[in-house]
Amino acid sequence: MANKIDAYIAANEARHFQEMFELLRIPSVSSQKTRQAETRRCAEWTAAHCRTIGLKAEVIDTQGHPVVLAEWLGKPGKPTILIYGHYDVQPEDPVKLWNSPPFEPTVKGCKLFARGAVDDKGQFFAHLKAIEAHLKTAGELPLNIKLILEGEEEIGSPSLPAFLERHQERLANNLLVISDSGMYKKGIPTITLGLRGISYFQLNLRSCKTDLHSGSFGGAAPNAGVAAGQIIAKLKDEKGKIQVPGFYDDVRPITAAEKASFDSLPFDEQAFMDEIGLKALVGEEGYSTLERMWVRPTLDVNGLLSGYTGEGAKTVIPAEAMIKVSMRLVPDQDPEKIRQAFEAYVRRITPQGVDLEVLYFQGSVAYVADPSHPAFKAAVEALEEGFNAKAAYTREGGSIPIVNDMTRRFGVSCLLLGLGLPDENAHAPNEYLDLDNWRAGVRTFAHFYGKLGELGAF
Amino acid sequence: MANKIDAYIAANEARHFQEMFELLRIPSVSSQKTRQAETRRCAEWTAAHCRTIGLKAEVIDTQGHPVVLAEWLGKPGKPTILIYGHYDVQPEDPVKLWNSPPFEPTVKGCKLFARGAVDDKGQFFAHLKAIEAHLKTAGELPLNIKLILEGEEEIGSPSLPAFLERHQERLANNLLVISDSGMYKKGIPTITLGLRGISYFQLNLRSCKTDLHSGSFGGAAPNAGVAAGQIIAKLKDEKGKIQVPGFYDDVRPITAAEKASFDSLPFDEQAFMDEIGLKALVGEEGYSTLERMWVRPTLDVNGLLSGYTGEGAKTVIPAEAMIKVSMRLVPDQDPEKIRQAFEAYVRRITPQGVDLEVLYFQGSVAYVADPSHPAFKAAVEALEEGFNAKAAYTREGGSIPIVNDMTRRFGVSCLLLGLGLPDENAHAPNEYLDLDNWRAGVRTFAHFYGKLGELGAF
Repeated sequence: MANKIDAYIAANEARHFQEMFELLRIPSVSSQKTRQAETRRCAEWTAAHCRTIGLKAEVIDTQGHPVVLAEWLGKPGKPTILIYGHYDVQPEDPVKLWNSPPFEPTVKGCKLFARGAVDDKGQFFAHLKAIEAHLKTAGELPLNIKLILEGEEEIGSPSLPAFLERHQERLANNLLVISDSGMYKKGIPTITLGLRGISYFQLNLRSCKTDLHSGSFGGAAPNAGVAAGQIIAKLKDEKGKIQVPGFYDDVRPITAAEKASFDSLPFDEQAFMDEIGLKALVGEEGYSTLERMWVRPTLDVNGLLSGYTGEGAKTVIPAEAMIKVSMRLVPDQDPEKIRQAFEAYVRRITPQGVDLEVLYFQGSVAYVADPSHPAFKAAVEALEEGFNAKAAYTREGGSIPIVNDMTRRFGVSCLLLGLGLPDENAHAPNEYLDLDNWRAGVRTFAHFYGKLGELGAF
Repeated sequence: MANKIDAYIAANEARHFQEMFELLRIPSVSSQKTRQAETRRCAEWTAAHCRTIGLKAEVIDTQGHPVVLAEWLGKPGKPTILIYGHYDVQPEDPVKLWNSPPFEPTVKGCKLFARGAVDDKGQFFAHLKAIEAHLKTAGELPLNIKLILEGEEEIGSPSLPAFLERHQERLANNLLVISDSGMYKKGIPTITLGLRGISYFQLNLRSCKTDLHSGSFGGAAPNAGVAAGQIIAKLKDEKGKIQVPGFYDDVRPITAAEKASFDSLPFDEQAFMDEIGLKALVGEEGYSTLERMWVRPTLDVNGLLSGYTGEGAKTVIPAEAMIKVSMRLVPDQDPEKIRQAFEAYVRRITPQGVDLEVLYFQGSVAYVADPSHPAFKAAVEALEEGFNAKAAYTREGGSIPIVNDMTRRFGVSCLLLGLGLPDENAHAPNEYLDLDNWRAGVRTFAHFYGKLGELGAF
């Protein structure tokens, strides 16, 4: 059976690519109101595609962007998995840094460039093609599959909790499967055991009702741009330690076993820096680079704007400044506690004469999986067959805010089975997907469904 | 004669306003390449207008924007004054904060709103109307007048030194007159005795070849936006003291006489704050607000840009950040020495893993006038006649980079006779000109020419 499926996948690859290109051409940027219609169009396209491969599928409205639900439930008595993905994407700007149009899929060698190629359209589409391979060769799936594809992952999934609440029975499952994460590196197929949480803010500063002439008023008027710098400099010290009081109180220390498993992974600092174009690795003292990215919390400025940013000189004291800043959280930090501590601290460090407005965009807790679940063994075997290489367990620094909610809600484990590579520019210009990994991923998913079906119950 | 001139000015005011509106409609933004043709059109319009009032005028090309030269030299034996002004303006952005279109002059009460209304089109145009009043009533001027109106003041006058060098004999004069400064307040006509210099930079930071996902890499990758904040916070301490080593070495201390004269001016801190919309006055410890703005050097962030600045959240580690930063200099600071000290300091405080590029846009020394010159007495009398109020001597915190060059070159004094008010939003949205002051200014200038003519030689 596996051979027949592998052959089907190989024989239909050219058509599969063309279909994936159609999906990637839709600019479903969930954070932008001007892209609302395109985001809905992406949901409709996805549901229609699910139907063409043999699933039942519908587009269901929410308060925000719609959710696509698809399912095949022809194996009563066999386990049911729920595959989660998202059809929305990050904004494409700065567009000038893309080498090809972000919404025109462009293949160079084994790389497919497009916004959403790896995060997450390409990844959930690999599941659809694995499902298609079973249905078109055997006429059935080896177990029951439900898919939930949302359109708000990149903005913190605001409508999903209510949606899950409303459709909880219909979505009941024995295992959650998500392919929205990364491989450790090319050649090492990976199961991700943990994710960081997030806490994301925008700070709006105002020092005056309008911009002022820096000659006439410089020296006496507060400057929102200077205030922004002073605030940023107090968020972290120069050794990377976050200065928000109480921030580290609930951080779960790294265990000796985890530390040993991370240390056993091949990691070449210079190659890592070269790959993503860094001149130095920085961060919290006393931790390795993998620890800093996977099990330690951190803080980053995500955006900054104040005063005159055009060509040449303008002698102005900016009245306003904007800082986007987010923290990555680890077990057992509580986003609500962090939110309160951060806001109180930022209010305290805002300089005299400057008004502060704090906007809170999203918060989610971190997640750690238990690898003793039998599905994890099946996934390791499927990965090793699909990729023809030894699989590894890792963690990931990013966040999938909904993982905790869904595992708790359904009382199931979550298997994070990602196809991304660290340098694929998710959220950045020139995002791409490695087509070798995609090909291996489709095979892996198809084999994985088969192995789960053989397991019977779990 | 003075009565006849005052009557002419009053009788022709409506037409004068219409002409000034034509001038203000031309978007002569010298810093923007896309406005190059409009900037030239402004020069052509100005020269043509000079001819209609009876001056000889021409537009002379430079390496950059052209210079308008105009003159009336019909009084051999009488002194010659050189009036300097500029027809270029600051960029109008942020346009959304304007209450009327920046290049459509809009009168509300005694306020004329438009980019360039006070800085400097309205001010040099008042001289043209005072000249017109003499020529149309008496058929001649009481002394010789040359006008030089440049198109690069707002970008640091890069082409003017070479222009002055080439046309030095033709521009020879006995007194430089500039109306590009402000009155102390409405009701107090003002002669400005000093200006601050400037040193303006752009810092370009790069921490990575491309933006990174803040989840995957946060904690290990340097962040250009965080670096920008850390650099800004080290430029000034929280008491407003600039941290560049050697920055204060050559600052001329304020004299007891100056201090006394500043202290004698009416200054209501609360009213000042209310007028420009401040919640606090900040600045260097140990100095009054007027001292901080007039005789002490300072540093301001003029612009800031990094990462994602659109709507909502984008979880990115910015690869780039841009800081525009300028210092206002006082006697006897040397811009070249300051440039070197600033650049060396900024290189030293740039965090590890971040590349720094320093762009230097402009530098000019500060200026102080000697009020014992006989023309200053004539100016005080003319101001008191024109405004019907007692005149004051002040300083100004802004810069007119070319003042030092011209006074040295021609071996003359410079009289800064400004019509602006502190709240007229020069360089900011909703720039305006007080039409009461403009009216009084035209009368003042006309009387001033008459008094200088009576002085004979100076």
